[in-house]
Amino acid sequence: VLIVGELLNSTRKAVKEALQAKDEATIRSLAREQVEAGADILDVNTATSMEREIDDLKWVIGLIHDEVGEVRLAIDTPDPKAMAAGLELCRARPVINSINNDPRLQQALIPVAKRYDADIIGLAMGGKRGMPSTVEERLEQAEQLINALEDAGVGLHRLFIDPIVMPVASSPDQGRAVIDAVREIKKRYGSRGVKTTVGLSNVSFGLPSRSLLNQAFLAMLVEAGLDMAVINPTDEGMKDMLRASEAILGIDAHCLKYVRHIRSKKG
Amino acid sequence: VLIVGELLNSTRKAVKEALQAKDEATIRSLAREQVEAGADILDVNTATSMEREIDDLKWVIGLIHDEVGEVRLAIDTPDPKAMAAGLELCRARPVINSINNDPRLQQALIPVAKRYDADIIGLAMGGKRGMPSTVEERLEQAEQLINALEDAGVGLHRLFIDPIVMPVASSPDQGRAVIDAVREIKKRYGSRGVKTTVGLSNVSFGLPSRSLLNQAFLAMLVEAGLDMAVINPTDEGMKDMLRASEAILGIDAHCLKYVRHIRSKKG
Repeated sequence: VLIVGELLNSTRKAVKEALQAKDEATIRSLAREQVEAGADILDVNTATSMEREIDDLKWVIGLIHDEVGEVRLAIDTPDPKAMAAGLELCRARPVINSINNDPRLQQALIPVAKRYDADIIGLAMGGKRGMPSTVEERLEQAEQLINALEDAGVGLHRLFIDPIVMPVASSPDQGRAVIDAVREIKKRYGSRGVKTTVGLSNVSFGLPSRSLLNQAFLAMLVEAGLDMAVINPTDEGMKDMLRASEAILGIDAHCLKYVRHIRSKKG
Repeated sequence: VLIVGELLNSTRKAVKEALQAKDEATIRSLAREQVEAGADILDVNTATSMEREIDDLKWVIGLIHDEVGEVRLAIDTPDPKAMAAGLELCRARPVINSINNDPRLQQALIPVAKRYDADIIGLAMGGKRGMPSTVEERLEQAEQLINALEDAGVGLHRLFIDPIVMPVASSPDQGRAVIDAVREIKKRYGSRGVKTTVGLSNVSFGLPSRSLLNQAFLAMLVEAGLDMAVINPTDEGMKDMLRASEAILGIDAHCLKYVRHIRSKKG
């Protein structure tokens, strides 16, 4: 399971303030901490900088490269211009975060995705149907997105479908719906290369001890076939649960990664 | 998910010694701790006492009742005579731990099960086929057991099938096989009342930080439809994961049990 580190996001107060103050040290340490904690990809979002979004995005990407070298980046923006500017600077295969069933967004982003051979997070929402609520709506949105990308000539092995995680505190059926959607997407489209991803921590919004709920959800999603998760990689409990889940499922054959992880904690 | 507390088992050194020394305090405190930790049922095993098994079983059951009152008990013995003696003393619906596809064991235990209207843990093993290795072997054993009990007039709502948990350290595919077996047993026989149970902690045998692996496995099994688990209820991480799993899946609607659990830890 690929880990996308979620901490370099301008909706977080510390990052927003660091962008405003051009505080290099904060950005550098968030990049380093996440990579050292095992993030495979770093999400970068400067969207709250508004008209300075592109300048800030370039500045952050430069700092990341300077601090940790050639790490993969997920460019996290609703603005196609910012997306193109961000992808241009990536040194390893970039991730587009995100596309959905909005035709105009697709029209703007698909050529960019193809130019950079980027991986794509495809949200199972948008278009006429808006946000999905049931498993069926998630699967309809996923199918629509898969068809659109395939018609546009995007290789489906580049696509990570995100079935849209919503808080269980407000809708108790949303955890089950996302798990079932991941399982069914993998079953229907996995052989054609389609993968799955989630913005996991949204599930626990509004509840106490959020990491515990995120851990339970992570174990279930890994079992259902999840390929990638946008999480806080410095949350030790989450990494414990990921390594333990891979050991239980035989993904981590002979539990080598698990045992190494446990030893590194004690050492 | 029903929790069967596993600590009053004579294969554990502390219990074996307490039985030998007739050490009431140890037995009483193991009973009280497990009930206070949320065990719904207490497993009682005195099998290592050999020819004194029945006497010790009666003694332990008496102490439990005296200490915590009318708790449910799972009588855990391979000996039908000890089983009958134990069930006779139960004050709340007993659990037979366990029956399997051995015809002689079935012949001896089914009349006792019916007399006390006991719940039954049915191991998916025994008979001609021995121990199961694959999902398919587990499902064959489960079907054979279901048919035998139904033919004998046992209500299937009394049956908890145990698909046999084996250590992932030696066989990496065993975790996945048990999860798939639980899901399939519930799908095939759930509407007829058949339930599932596991002796969970066997999965992590031989590996470090066993509770972490047990927690990941528990979350996955609850998602697959598990009804009962034989665990150490005083393992705080396991209870955290159980409550979090129920909240994620909407079993604990509006997360009331979860929030109460978290508050009780902080209080």
